[in-house]
Amino acid sequence: MTAALLACDWGTTNLRAWTLDARGGVVADRDFPGLGVAKLKPGEAEARFRDEVRPALSAERLPAMLCGMVGSNLGWTLAPYADAPADLDDLAARLKAVDGPDWIRIVPGVRWAGFNGQGDVMRGEETQLFGWLAAEPERGRGRRLVCHPGTHAKWMLVEDGRLTRFVTAMTGELFAVLKTHSVLKSEVAADDMAAFDAGVAAAGAGDALAARLFTARARVVGEGRPAEETPSYLSGLLIGAEVAATPALLGCTGDEPVSLLGDAKLCGLYARALAARGIEADVHDGEAAAVAGLFALYERVRP
Amino acid sequence: MTAALLACDWGTTNLRAWTLDARGGVVADRDFPGLGVAKLKPGEAEARFRDEVRPALSAERLPAMLCGMVGSNLGWTLAPYADAPADLDDLAARLKAVDGPDWIRIVPGVRWAGFNGQGDVMRGEETQLFGWLAAEPERGRGRRLVCHPGTHAKWMLVEDGRLTRFVTAMTGELFAVLKTHSVLKSEVAADDMAAFDAGVAAAGAGDALAARLFTARARVVGEGRPAEETPSYLSGLLIGAEVAATPALLGCTGDEPVSLLGDAKLCGLYARALAARGIEADVHDGEAAAVAGLFALYERVRP
Repeated sequence: MTAALLACDWGTTNLRAWTLDARGGVVADRDFPGLGVAKLKPGEAEARFRDEVRPALSAERLPAMLCGMVGSNLGWTLAPYADAPADLDDLAARLKAVDGPDWIRIVPGVRWAGFNGQGDVMRGEETQLFGWLAAEPERGRGRRLVCHPGTHAKWMLVEDGRLTRFVTAMTGELFAVLKTHSVLKSEVAADDMAAFDAGVAAAGAGDALAARLFTARARVVGEGRPAEETPSYLSGLLIGAEVAATPALLGCTGDEPVSLLGDAKLCGLYARALAARGIEADVHDGEAAAVAGLFALYERVRP
Repeated sequence: MTAALLACDWGTTNLRAWTLDARGGVVADRDFPGLGVAKLKPGEAEARFRDEVRPALSAERLPAMLCGMVGSNLGWTLAPYADAPADLDDLAARLKAVDGPDWIRIVPGVRWAGFNGQGDVMRGEETQLFGWLAAEPERGRGRRLVCHPGTHAKWMLVEDGRLTRFVTAMTGELFAVLKTHSVLKSEVAADDMAAFDAGVAAAGAGDALAARLFTARARVVGEGRPAEETPSYLSGLLIGAEVAATPALLGCTGDEPVSLLGDAKLCGLYARALAARGIEADVHDGEAAAVAGLFALYERVRP
């Protein structure tokens, strides 16, 4: 089947592009890690898209639907946030049309007033969320707690198909800066599930994180545990603290099941940390959800 | 009065040395920031002490009492930890004598089994704590919660003059790595007390830190607050989370008064964050306490 749409998840560190057929099936895909918006100069996104991304995916000038940080002031052009509560139709109504002869739309991010009155924001995860919801009608009913792990993990509360509340946890970034720049840094990073589980246990109720973090150091200098265990222990501690305390910020009880959406390996670690607390989790592929979300938006507004 | 003791607080990043008279009064003092143990090669401490530190402080080869990371395996020679509960006499009984013709003693650190069964350790803060306790007999009675803020803040529970429990919070290090290496980095760092107070308020009960940290980003990108406020907000958030949740790890109720021991400016920030929670705090000079502790140990074992 011929290609109908060029779909892009264009984030801070990577651009992932797909050509989709008229039913939303993937015809081709490609990553452009050099085109993450953090690596672009102001005004550069348009030219790189026209000269590199589009020709690499299709000989035609397909309609294009883009989500992610490309819609921020660091990206191509600003796509103003939709306010939560929001659903797929709200996003479709606020798509940002790019100036010029080509049909190119950018998905707005979503803003929520926040758990303590301070606004929180997302760009890209909303497209995955609504793509995941659109894939099965059952998902759009009732109340669902969805977590998208990553550098800036998103915890999203969905009620009857609308994203009503969400909060961002900087867990992935904390892990990255601590394992690279702090006293907890380690040259070696083995996947040590026993150390991960010990970290999850040390996270307690997700309180007093700065003190619990020091246990990662103390177990090496005070107890002679191998430093090679530290990255896995640190990962367990940070993820354990996140899953223990973050749902309460959305008004959840902390024992509700969680749907995990994103990278399979990372979602697996979250599922393990949740299981240690007796919480059920189901894991879903973030990339398939992004494709489904971009295509669902296209179907609503197609030229 | 002639000098009687060369006293050194020899830590990771700095060596501070004093000559003290026979009553413990300071005759002279000097910093050697180039001699922090993190900057020394293995085996280098002894030569640098003999060739640089001692000649700079006194023409005589005075008896010397050293505390801090100099007693770790990164320092001069290993001074094995005393186990908590411990008091000044326990430290005096475990002073490490350095090999050679000179009278040089290194104060042991203290180890505690830890709030969740994982050992915690300190080197240097115990000398300040016991110096502070020794300065007024009243401080050695009853129960006291003492906090020594810093890169690795120590929360110490003292019962009838004995250090019974303590826990380390990596708050200062979290602040340093986040303001330098994370999305929360900022070129400018004004002392903005309103932003500090907002950060303290955003710390809540000291739970879900990774999520609360993202409010420092969201208030800039979502609400248009100036990025120059971020360091002060981040400082308030981290210190607020620490003072809210750490005392409970020692079995304290969270509304007990806190004695702050250390750098005056940093102690002031902690006192402000505690006051926002309705907790009384009194502030004491860490340097005077270190001098008093080193001298009190010397008096117990002097040659």
